[in-house]
Amino acid sequence: MISGTDPLNKRPIGIFDSGVGGLTVVKQVMDALPCEAIVYFGDTARVPYGTKSARAVQAFAVQDTEFLLRQNVKMVIVACHTASSVALTSLAGRFDVPILGVVEPGVDSALKNTKNGKIGVIGTRGTIASRTYEEQLLAKDPGVQVFPKACPLFVPFAEEGWLEGEIIFKVAETYLKPFRESGIDTLILGCTHYPLLKRVIAQVLGEGVALIDSATETARVVRKRLYELKIANDSQSVPEHRFTVSDIPEPFRDVGERFLGKKLGRIEQIDLEKVQA
Amino acid sequence: MISGTDPLNKRPIGIFDSGVGGLTVVKQVMDALPCEAIVYFGDTARVPYGTKSARAVQAFAVQDTEFLLRQNVKMVIVACHTASSVALTSLAGRFDVPILGVVEPGVDSALKNTKNGKIGVIGTRGTIASRTYEEQLLAKDPGVQVFPKACPLFVPFAEEGWLEGEIIFKVAETYLKPFRESGIDTLILGCTHYPLLKRVIAQVLGEGVALIDSATETARVVRKRLYELKIANDSQSVPEHRFTVSDIPEPFRDVGERFLGKKLGRIEQIDLEKVQA
Repeated sequence: MISGTDPLNKRPIGIFDSGVGGLTVVKQVMDALPCEAIVYFGDTARVPYGTKSARAVQAFAVQDTEFLLRQNVKMVIVACHTASSVALTSLAGRFDVPILGVVEPGVDSALKNTKNGKIGVIGTRGTIASRTYEEQLLAKDPGVQVFPKACPLFVPFAEEGWLEGEIIFKVAETYLKPFRESGIDTLILGCTHYPLLKRVIAQVLGEGVALIDSATETARVVRKRLYELKIANDSQSVPEHRFTVSDIPEPFRDVGERFLGKKLGRIEQIDLEKVQA
Repeated sequence: MISGTDPLNKRPIGIFDSGVGGLTVVKQVMDALPCEAIVYFGDTARVPYGTKSARAVQAFAVQDTEFLLRQNVKMVIVACHTASSVALTSLAGRFDVPILGVVEPGVDSALKNTKNGKIGVIGTRGTIASRTYEEQLLAKDPGVQVFPKACPLFVPFAEEGWLEGEIIFKVAETYLKPFRESGIDTLILGCTHYPLLKRVIAQVLGEGVALIDSATETARVVRKRLYELKIANDSQSVPEHRFTVSDIPEPFRDVGERFLGKKLGRIEQIDLEKVQA
């Protein structure tokens, strides 16, 4: 699917998510691979994916991937837990560039971390309903016990910026109370928005539960794959990143800079028709 | 745009919304006009509209209207406050069937109700940012004072079904506290989801503030227009309604029956490509 005249190693990495959440992954990839250029696509006209059906998310993920491939990327990172859960296998079968998701790195990290074999997973309705985390955890270690829980209000709270205080604490307590009884020692934050709520989640669950944020693990896997495939960018020049979205840029900038932890430069709006082309 | 061989009065009324919210309008139209058939379209693949830009919502609203017109409807009701706020004027100019929104009926009802001329409006970010309510209220009565406030967490709470208890009370209090100081006597519920939160909103604001739910007023306006245009259905037979959505039907049914207050029959899934055709 890759075309163009650039050698593979000079080409950018493509990263997509339904909206701003994937910028937590971009941040870690930038840190781990400072010479790689990134093309990011946030599908803000159709956000969120986490409340939509597997079938809808699969169709969107194919279009998002095709859009990134038209930008001549050498690898695609599905920086959305819902799309990684329901669409990664079909994407990998359909396209011949390497396509990586955010689920497996979190799974591996959780299995490495757990001592008592009791692992919790929180995510959107779509991610949890797919049972992908459970299946991957149990496929790699049939001895673990998995406790999944959808937390649909966490995304709107993260986007509203209500990250601390009494209200979000009580919301978190309502969702997470069952984990106290099940005695997990590891919790996978199965949504790119959830790292913003790390503090309140830790407050509710206490020090005995390790929180697994997949972004760092994903960046490590991306780095490893680029070197294995001999397509890492070895130049020392500062890369140019591109940020693209399917709705207007302004709200993406406001929330996105909080997620990325730095300023976003120019943000390009891509007509949905061009994404669906 | 209308085609087909049915006489106008026998044709259905088309009603669309981004998702389930518009069913609160369907409910009132069914009560007010029990002989009219309805074709409902909920754009559940792209829900919500309230967080998206005016430009995106305008494009979606054109596609939704075209889809309903292909179902041979005699009138279109935009049962979404965000789409009514940002797209109604352009829709009315583009199509030659009568197109009615939910904003003006609420505006008229609020102006009729207020005694002290202080009117609050709550809605999604998109609705409030459009300033449509303020402009319409002031155009009809330049003497009133309007107090707008976006309440982005109300929609996810309504859909999660957390309609009472301490958490939603505190959320409502956080959003609505400024209204106590401004001394409004009338509050427009400028989003189809908000009637589900009527009780908690009333708890926070007290008995001195009347809550305006546009659905009932909209149904009254629809009835009036059908008779004025001589296209009301005068048959006494029980009409057949159709419910269509752009994502899978199951979650729409679960939440939708709560919104409609009765069972939904068959729900048809329409491919987004067919909506965008």
